[in-house]
Amino acid sequence: MNITAAYTDLYQITMAQVYYGTKPNGRAVFDYYFRHNPYKGGYSIFAGLEDVLNILETLEFSSSDMNYLKQKGFENDFLNYLKNFSFKGNIYACNEGDVVFPNRPILQVEANIIEAQIIETLLLNILNFQTLIATKASRIKYSAKDGILLDMGLRRAHATGGYYASRAAAIGGFDSTSNVKAAEDYNIPSTGTMAHSFIQSYEEEIQAFRDFAKMRPQNCVLLIDTYNTLKSGLPNAIKVAKEMEERGDKLLGVRLDSGDLAYLSKKTRTMLDDADLSYVKIVASNQLDEYVIKSLKEQGAYIDIYGVGTNLVTGKPDASIDGVYKLSEFNNTPRIKLSENIIKTSLPFKKQVYRMIDENNMFYGADAVTINSEESVSLMEHPFDNTKSLDLNRFKHEPLLQQVMKDGKRIIASRTVTEIKEYSQSRLQQLPNEYKRFQNPHIYKIGLSPKLKKERDVLIKKNKF
Amino acid sequence: MNITAAYTDLYQITMAQVYYGTKPNGRAVFDYYFRHNPYKGGYSIFAGLEDVLNILETLEFSSSDMNYLKQKGFENDFLNYLKNFSFKGNIYACNEGDVVFPNRPILQVEANIIEAQIIETLLLNILNFQTLIATKASRIKYSAKDGILLDMGLRRAHATGGYYASRAAAIGGFDSTSNVKAAEDYNIPSTGTMAHSFIQSYEEEIQAFRDFAKMRPQNCVLLIDTYNTLKSGLPNAIKVAKEMEERGDKLLGVRLDSGDLAYLSKKTRTMLDDADLSYVKIVASNQLDEYVIKSLKEQGAYIDIYGVGTNLVTGKPDASIDGVYKLSEFNNTPRIKLSENIIKTSLPFKKQVYRMIDENNMFYGADAVTINSEESVSLMEHPFDNTKSLDLNRFKHEPLLQQVMKDGKRIIASRTVTEIKEYSQSRLQQLPNEYKRFQNPHIYKIGLSPKLKKERDVLIKKNKF
Repeated sequence: MNITAAYTDLYQITMAQVYYGTKPNGRAVFDYYFRHNPYKGGYSIFAGLEDVLNILETLEFSSSDMNYLKQKGFENDFLNYLKNFSFKGNIYACNEGDVVFPNRPILQVEANIIEAQIIETLLLNILNFQTLIATKASRIKYSAKDGILLDMGLRRAHATGGYYASRAAAIGGFDSTSNVKAAEDYNIPSTGTMAHSFIQSYEEEIQAFRDFAKMRPQNCVLLIDTYNTLKSGLPNAIKVAKEMEERGDKLLGVRLDSGDLAYLSKKTRTMLDDADLSYVKIVASNQLDEYVIKSLKEQGAYIDIYGVGTNLVTGKPDASIDGVYKLSEFNNTPRIKLSENIIKTSLPFKKQVYRMIDENNMFYGADAVTINSEESVSLMEHPFDNTKSLDLNRFKHEPLLQQVMKDGKRIIASRTVTEIKEYSQSRLQQLPNEYKRFQNPHIYKIGLSPKLKKERDVLIKKNKF
Repeated sequence: MNITAAYTDLYQITMAQVYYGTKPNGRAVFDYYFRHNPYKGGYSIFAGLEDVLNILETLEFSSSDMNYLKQKGFENDFLNYLKNFSFKGNIYACNEGDVVFPNRPILQVEANIIEAQIIETLLLNILNFQTLIATKASRIKYSAKDGILLDMGLRRAHATGGYYASRAAAIGGFDSTSNVKAAEDYNIPSTGTMAHSFIQSYEEEIQAFRDFAKMRPQNCVLLIDTYNTLKSGLPNAIKVAKEMEERGDKLLGVRLDSGDLAYLSKKTRTMLDDADLSYVKIVASNQLDEYVIKSLKEQGAYIDIYGVGTNLVTGKPDASIDGVYKLSEFNNTPRIKLSENIIKTSLPFKKQVYRMIDENNMFYGADAVTINSEESVSLMEHPFDNTKSLDLNRFKHEPLLQQVMKDGKRIIASRTVTEIKEYSQSRLQQLPNEYKRFQNPHIYKIGLSPKLKKERDVLIKKNKF
C-alpha cells in the first residue's frame, strides 16, 4: 500500500464535494493538538513531522483512487478537481522532537478548506502515532539512564505501523533497531542477536554458538536461555568466548530472554567476571517497559543493553494519543467548537505559542498562547480561572510555531533522525525533572494572552444555547 | 514504504548468513500460534492470511535493500544468495476467519530454514495484528447484535497499520469503513458522515445542514452536537429533513458524537418520532467499545449505527497478541524449546489439529493435536495432567490445517473480505455462547494424541538440565 490522497476518511471527500459546490475558495486554519499526555505523563515528544512534509509535497490521487471515487458516484466536475489535487497550503509547526504539552497547537495548517480536510486523516494518523511512540521511548530512556536501548518490536507492531514505530523510537532516544527496512530508509543503526530457533536447529547448543561466533565474530551476542541459562547457556557461552579470544575475537555479549532478569543478570555477571570476561556485556529482553527497567535498576540488576519490543512499538498501555484537528479560522474569521466540558472547547484564531525560558535556560513551566497577529505577550491568563494570571516579563519568550511549508513546498531543510533525536534530548535537558517522573508529574501550565481569552469568551457567548 | 524481504529483523539475516555457510539446505518446520486469547476472551479470529500469501508470492530484496546489506558488511556469496531470494516453501494454515484458540498451531511453515527465518517477522507482524483486530471487531459485533458497525479509526491507528486494521475489522464483523484506501483495495463498503469543522465553517449550523443535504442527499447523516445537540443540532436537522421530504429525498440519519449517548439517543428518538421522522436513523460515536455498547443496549439507548474508532483499530486495551513462531522440526527430526513454565514449552513435530464437532454440528469445545503422520486420533490426553483424557470417537473430526501454499505458490483460491467475514460469522455460530461472554468465558480445551505427548516428553527429558 502506498500512501496517496485516498489515505483518508470518506467524509473528507464528501465534505470536499460540498465545499467545492458552495465555497471552493474558502481559506481555513486548522490546529493540531492533543488533549492529554499519554501514560499520565508530564510531557510528550512531538514526532512525525518530516514524514508528513515529505508525503504532502507529492500527495495526489492515483488512477486507481480516481476509478474508485468515480464508482462511488462523485460527479465529474468534482472528480476533475480531485484528479488535479495537490496540497498547496502553509504549515506552521513546533520543531520535530520538541517537548510538547496538551491543549496548545503543535502544528497549524493554513490552506484551502478542501485541501486542509483531505489531508486531515493522514496528518493525524502519522503525528498521533509517532508522537505516542517517541514519548514512550523517551520514558524508557529516562528509566534506562545510560543503558543502551534496542527496539525489537516489529513482530508485534501494528502491521506496517511498525516501520514508523522504529523511526519514532529512535527520535525518543533508542540507540538502534532490529527493523531492517526502517534502518535502511531512515538511517537508524540496526542491530540484532539470534533466535531460539537458531540454537534449536543444532543438536548441541555449543555448536550453534561456535558456528555463529566463527561466522559473525563482530558484535556477536549469544542467546543463553534456550535450555537452561545458568547450567547450559552461560557455561557454553563462556567456553566459546574463550575460543574467540584465541582467535583474537571478542564476544560482545550474552542475552537473557526469560526468567528473573534481576537474579539471572547478577549471577551471569559474576560468572562472566570469574572467567575474566568482564568485557562481555549483558543484554536483557522480555516484556520490558519503563517500569520494569526502573525496577531492574533498583534491584541492582547488571544489564548493559535493553531490548524492548511490544510495549514500545504498540505504545502500551495507552496505544493511542488523543490528537485532534480543529478549525480555528475560516475566511479570516475566528471559529470555535463548543463542548459541555469547557476544557474541550477549542481555541479560535491562527495562533502562536511562546515558551517561557528562565534565567538558567530551563523551561519555566508555562506556554503562553496568543493570537498570531499579536506581536508579543507580557501577561498570560489562566484559560478558565479568571483570578489567575502570570507576568511574563522576566522570561525569555521562545516562539514555538515556525513556518515549515509554504504553498505546498517545505521551506525547512530535512533533518535526519539522529539530528532530531539529539535535538529532542537537548530539549529534555531543559525540562525540569518534576515533569519527567512517572507518578503525578508536575503539570506544565498553559495561559492565554488577554486578547485571545477575551475574544474566545465573546465567541463562546455568541454560540451558546 | 513497500514491503520487501528487508521488512524483517536484522537477526534473521545474520542467522541466515550462518545457515548459508554451515547448512544451506536445512529443512525446517515452524509453528505459528499464540499463547493467550486477547481481552481475556474465550476465542480469537484468525486473520491476515490472504495478505501473507499475496506478499510471499512476490517477496524479494529490492536493489536499495541489497545496497544497504552490502554496506552492513555481509559477504558477496551470501549477498548473491539474497539477491536471488524468494520464498519457495509450503504453508499449512487454518482458514482465514476461523475461530482459533491458544497453544495449538494456526499456521505451519515448511521450508528451507533460511527462507523460513527471513519471512518470520513479516508473518508475525501481519498475522498478530490482524488477528488482534478481527477478534476485537467480533466482540464488538457480539455486543452490538444487529446494530450496524462502522470503522472510523484511521486517524488514531498506528500509522499505515490502519490500512490492515480496516481489513481485519471487516473480517471480524464490521459493516463498513471510513478508510477510503482500504475500502478501495479490499472492496469493503465505505461510508462516512461529516465533521464538526464542516459546520463550523458556516455562520449558521442550519445552512451547513442545508448545503450538505442538497448536494449529498443519498446516505445523508447530519452531525448534531457541534453547538447544542437537543436545542440546536436536532431541531435544525429536523427542519432540513422536512425540506428534504419536499424534494423527495430522505434524511438517512443524525449523529451523536459527545455527551450521554444513552440519554441523548432516547431524547433524539422521541423528537424524531414526534416529527414523523421515524425512518431517520441514529448514529452514535465517541470512544465506543464492546463494553460501552453493551451498557448502551442495557440502558435501552436507541442507536442504529455505531461508529467505532480508536478502541477498535488499536485493539485496546491489549494492543497486541502474543503470537510466536517456533521451530518444531529440523531435517525431519523433532525440535523443542523448553521453558521453566511447562505451558511455554513448545510442541515438536509437523502437526495436524482436529476440531471436534458434536451431533448438532456445534464445536464440542476441544481441539486434538497430532503428529502430522498420524492418520487419525481416537483419544486426546491433557498436555500436562496425566490423569485426564477424552475419548474422541463420538465426534466428527475436522482437520484445521490445510495446505495453502506449495513451493512458494498459493494453491487456494483468493477469498474476498466479504467471503472471509461470512465464513467467520458461520464459524462463530458453531461456537457455543459460553465461549463468547466477556467475563470468565469457558476455556476451549486442547489435547495431544498419546503419541505426540509421549514423544514430546522424551524430548523434554533429553534436553533437561
